Amino acid sequence: MNLEKIKNPDFLKQLNVDEMEALAADIREFIIQNVSHTGGHFSSNLGVVELTIALHYVFNSPIDKIIFDVGHQSYVHKILTGRVNDFATLRQFNGLSGFQKRNESEHDAWEAGHSSTALSGGIGMAVARDLNHETNEIICVVGDAAIMSGESFEALNYLGSIDSKVIVILNDNDMSISKNVGGLSNFFSEIRISTQYKNAKNNYISFLNKSKTGRKIYHMTKKIKDHIKENVIDDNIFGEFGLDYIGPVNGHDFHDLINALILAREMDHSVVVHVHTKKGKGYVLAENDRYGVYHGVPPFDYKEGILKSKGNIKSWSAIISSQVEKLMDEDEDIVVITPAMISGSCLGDIFKKYPNRSFDVGIAEEHAMTFAAGLSNGGKKPYITVYSSFLQRAYDQINHDIARMDLPCLIGVDRSGLVGSDGETHHGVFDISFLSSIPHLTIMTPKDAYEAKAMVNTAMKQFDHPYILRFPKGSVEDCQVDTSETLQIGTWEKIIDNPDYHLTIVTYDAKVYKVKAMIENNQLPVNLINARFIKPLDFAMLDELYENHQSLIIYETDLMTGSLGSLICQYYALKHRYMSIDCMGIDDHYTPQGDIETLLKHEHIAIDDLLTLTKEKCREERKS
Amino acid sequence: MNLEKIKNPDFLKQLNVDEMEALAADIREFIIQNVSHTGGHFSSNLGVVELTIALHYVFNSPIDKIIFDVGHQSYVHKILTGRVNDFATLRQFNGLSGFQKRNESEHDAWEAGHSSTALSGGIGMAVARDLNHETNEIICVVGDAAIMSGESFEALNYLGSIDSKVIVILNDNDMSISKNVGGLSNFFSEIRISTQYKNAKNNYISFLNKSKTGRKIYHMTKKIKDHIKENVIDDNIFGEFGLDYIGPVNGHDFHDLINALILAREMDHSVVVHVHTKKGKGYVLAENDRYGVYHGVPPFDYKEGILKSKGNIKSWSAIISSQVEKLMDEDEDIVVITPAMISGSCLGDIFKKYPNRSFDVGIAEEHAMTFAAGLSNGGKKPYITVYSSFLQRAYDQINHDIARMDLPCLIGVDRSGLVGSDGETHHGVFDISFLSSIPHLTIMTPKDAYEAKAMVNTAMKQFDHPYILRFPKGSVEDCQVDTSETLQIGTWEKIIDNPDYHLTIVTYDAKVYKVKAMIENNQLPVNLINARFIKPLDFAMLDELYENHQSLIIYETDLMTGSLGSLICQYYALKHRYMSIDCMGIDDHYTPQGDIETLLKHEHIAIDDLLTLTKEKCREERKS
Repeated sequence: MNLEKIKNPDFLKQLNVDEMEALAADIREFIIQNVSHTGGHFSSNLGVVELTIALHYVFNSPIDKIIFDVGHQSYVHKILTGRVNDFATLRQFNGLSGFQKRNESEHDAWEAGHSSTALSGGIGMAVARDLNHETNEIICVVGDAAIMSGESFEALNYLGSIDSKVIVILNDNDMSISKNVGGLSNFFSEIRISTQYKNAKNNYISFLNKSKTGRKIYHMTKKIKDHIKENVIDDNIFGEFGLDYIGPVNGHDFHDLINALILAREMDHSVVVHVHTKKGKGYVLAENDRYGVYHGVPPFDYKEGILKSKGNIKSWSAIISSQVEKLMDEDEDIVVITPAMISGSCLGDIFKKYPNRSFDVGIAEEHAMTFAAGLSNGGKKPYITVYSSFLQRAYDQINHDIARMDLPCLIGVDRSGLVGSDGETHHGVFDISFLSSIPHLTIMTPKDAYEAKAMVNTAMKQFDHPYILRFPKGSVEDCQVDTSETLQIGTWEKIIDNPDYHLTIVTYDAKVYKVKAMIENNQLPVNLINARFIKPLDFAMLDELYENHQSLIIYETDLMTGSLGSLICQYYALKHRYMSIDCMGIDDHYTPQGDIETLLKHEHIAIDDLLTLTKEKCREERKS
Repeated sequence: MNLEKIKNPDFLKQLNVDEMEALAADIREFIIQNVSHTGGHFSSNLGVVELTIALHYVFNSPIDKIIFDVGHQSYVHKILTGRVNDFATLRQFNGLSGFQKRNESEHDAWEAGHSSTALSGGIGMAVARDLNHETNEIICVVGDAAIMSGESFEALNYLGSIDSKVIVILNDNDMSISKNVGGLSNFFSEIRISTQYKNAKNNYISFLNKSKTGRKIYHMTKKIKDHIKENVIDDNIFGEFGLDYIGPVNGHDFHDLINALILAREMDHSVVVHVHTKKGKGYVLAENDRYGVYHGVPPFDYKEGILKSKGNIKSWSAIISSQVEKLMDEDEDIVVITPAMISGSCLGDIFKKYPNRSFDVGIAEEHAMTFAAGLSNGGKKPYITVYSSFLQRAYDQINHDIARMDLPCLIGVDRSGLVGSDGETHHGVFDISFLSSIPHLTIMTPKDAYEAKAMVNTAMKQFDHPYILRFPKGSVEDCQVDTSETLQIGTWEKIIDNPDYHLTIVTYDAKVYKVKAMIENNQLPVNLINARFIKPLDFAMLDELYENHQSLIIYETDLMTGSLGSLICQYYALKHRYMSIDCMGIDDHYTPQGDIETLLKHEHIAIDDLLTLTKEKCREERKS
């Protein structure tokens, strides 16, 4: 059908199963065509085509609230709720979000970006509904990896103890982002269809055969409702939590799906519907992908699939992982921990080479961090790598466990700074602000591959305290660095140092090169410092800047409050040294999605903005 | 026996059960006598007397590592490891810690203070042990409430998927801090001793009867080991996680305990030993306490028990809760959420009066916060109150869920600032630093009961954004405040305002009164400002201070980095206004335990330190 004509999901109520299957094929083709062109979340959306259609067939959005955990698997939902024409702008500045967004549609009742919040949020909305004497359904679609994360467990446990009803759809693709971890994942793979459920299903299949359109479904008899309680299973983990369970259901079979969802809808209490789906379904390369390569994709060729990058330009993650691997070759105490990001953090080679020293703990940032603390306490040298935005989940574990016990380790903070199209939930712009006040931490920000690798060496060779190594999304030129090369903690680097200049730009990470180019291209009389340690600051250099009567521009693309600029301002203020300081950084708000250059302009922190400010300061200086 | 003679737990190996029972009675009496005198954690320690003796009987600490989750139930362990003489200094400055502390004894292999870290830490240590080819046991003692927290679930799930062995002791007192919450708690209360376990037990009882001393226990036959696999149960939640299970065990019966622990020790893989204990056992008032009053206690009279405080001096928690209750009387949309702190947060009256609008979610700060977000999203007005230090667990939920979606609510940050004898794990000194960079938040710090109540009103009447209300441990004089009284957001208060004075002290919370008294008692020519909003700052007043040529002392007793002082320094720096600013606050380290006055002196931030600085500044000013 013509997807562009869809205004809302009401039309679905009139479809029969054959028509739904045709619709599913059209949607799948649209997603493959569109996402291969724009980039975005791919496999997860291909997996939930039938499920999403069935949800909108059985439930009445927006009265009933369908919450997708994380939200990256909501593309089908967006198509069915009248947003197909916006897909050309997917994940672009001012374009369609890659997640559910409340201001985008009345069908998006909740929003996220981090995993495992749907249940807690949905339970809150369900309790509010009951207090408000409303009767709508709340349906939370949660992946099998996300449901094994701590917050989901807390929510399941709580849900089992209250009367408010939430329908939990366990979207089990036996994989989630990458392969699943944990004792429970065995349970998911081994569970069989029970006799009871088969009976229930047969009842409903005969029922549905009599009533092909959705209207008739509402005329369910009391008799059928009475069957429900007998026909659910409670001898698994959800039963232990006090929840009913229906499943497993073939997530690509409309009959099965609709039966199960009606059963869930007609129950008067919370239930888990366990749906088996195939991630990437309909695109062979994605179906066969075991490493999550097709989870989130850049634009790619429909026929060729995603091609490996060539040459010496590598992602920061890959460069840093390769140095960790090199150190592991020499030091058998080094171990590596990731919360479900083997592919994203480029740890595949390490996991293959050192399976006994590599640990994927699943989506469990809290456990990952305290587990690392335990390993360090047991004499090992952990490298834990977490995306900046997800590190927020482990704030207490970094503070209370690692830093307070001063347990040596190296924490790689990947995807720090603005990340682009994933938008406000994913920008790694808070980590300096929340980490800089934690004692015992050293915070390092490399400007290039050499420094990144030397910093890995420094942390692992010193191994006296916890080290933070923050690095951005994206790529940089690689280089070979011997494992013996280290940096002096708390030393900054003078990139341009002319005693005749009285304005100094202080920046860090790859921005150092961008600023250097700006200064040189514009022949500006400006010094440049690479503040490669955010903590400790290079106090000697700060003192020297004061003595040399330098004015400062502190150029950051992270949140301004609590970041390098604020640390420097307070340092001088407390020494009663009155310096001219300007800070550039992100103001007190969330930054939306978009390509990074657009976002930098949007935040008035692009290189051109810096150039304008720098020229202005140079003029002021000439006047004075 | 004479507990003071205990140097280490080796002597236990020689005891028979009768002697252990006598020892347990002595220890229990010692704890009651001592903790009623010093204050400390009470009920939990009385509950684990036999369990701890049995652990040290069966295992060989310090080779085997016994980790107590949180650690507040480690007093018996401390007594058995030669620290009984230090109990007079319990929780005092430079005295015995109320938790396990690695620098206190080789028998303390791990340390904490926050709940639910023992499993992750223990798993890390177990994996390290195996990589190091060592063979010691790791035993984690976790309460039934703490095991239902997200991080524990993550750890259990992970433990079930790896080969490294950890012995998990589920210390089930059907209560933990206050009454348990969650679907799982039903499971814990309903589980029965299975036939299999009874058989296993009988085998071991006959075995132990033949071998009263511990030495013979090591000569276990292969035959007995073969029985083990048959004699454990796997059809409960731990089985779903892939873990073996033994229990439930009577936690006050040495025969049962020792049997179960030997069984666990002889197994070659991870196992959960479910031990039933009675919290407060041996002290009737504590045994009958359903609200956690005897969980952590002040010094109290042995015979009378803890007496209720009288008069108009009430805890900050009680004062704020009473105002929330008053608003709930008028506004049925207001709901209250606590993570297992009904007693500590003085919510008992609200829970009784409004059971349908009061939610105790258990030790689940992450779920608590996102649940509140869901309630707000559903049109309710949530008041969530969490201790500052435990709020660290919910950083991501405050940022990603509440603040990013800008969902109105009121978050009470209880026990903010230094808390005294609980020490470095509990001081609420980080919250300003990690909250101030989060957009959309308003952060309020009341100086007295009036402001506290007016701030509650303000948040609930405005109800436009998320509000943070931070208040300390301790008490203050109560007063009646009408629900209509509100404050203007972002307005500070001039307490002393003399245009002839050129030094202004800026402070907040109850320190305002202490500083005022200091200024008046010493007749200092100094102005005083109550910075009752940390975010947003009172920019107009900051501008006025600059225009009036004021020098500033910013007096804080929280962590200096990222706190009010740093916000003010950066504000002036970016306006190129060169002000003389001094900041007092906690330097870049963790503050130990002790009474608050001692800690303030230790940190050089006592009122006397402020007085010294103020006088110095006054002298400087006269000179200039």
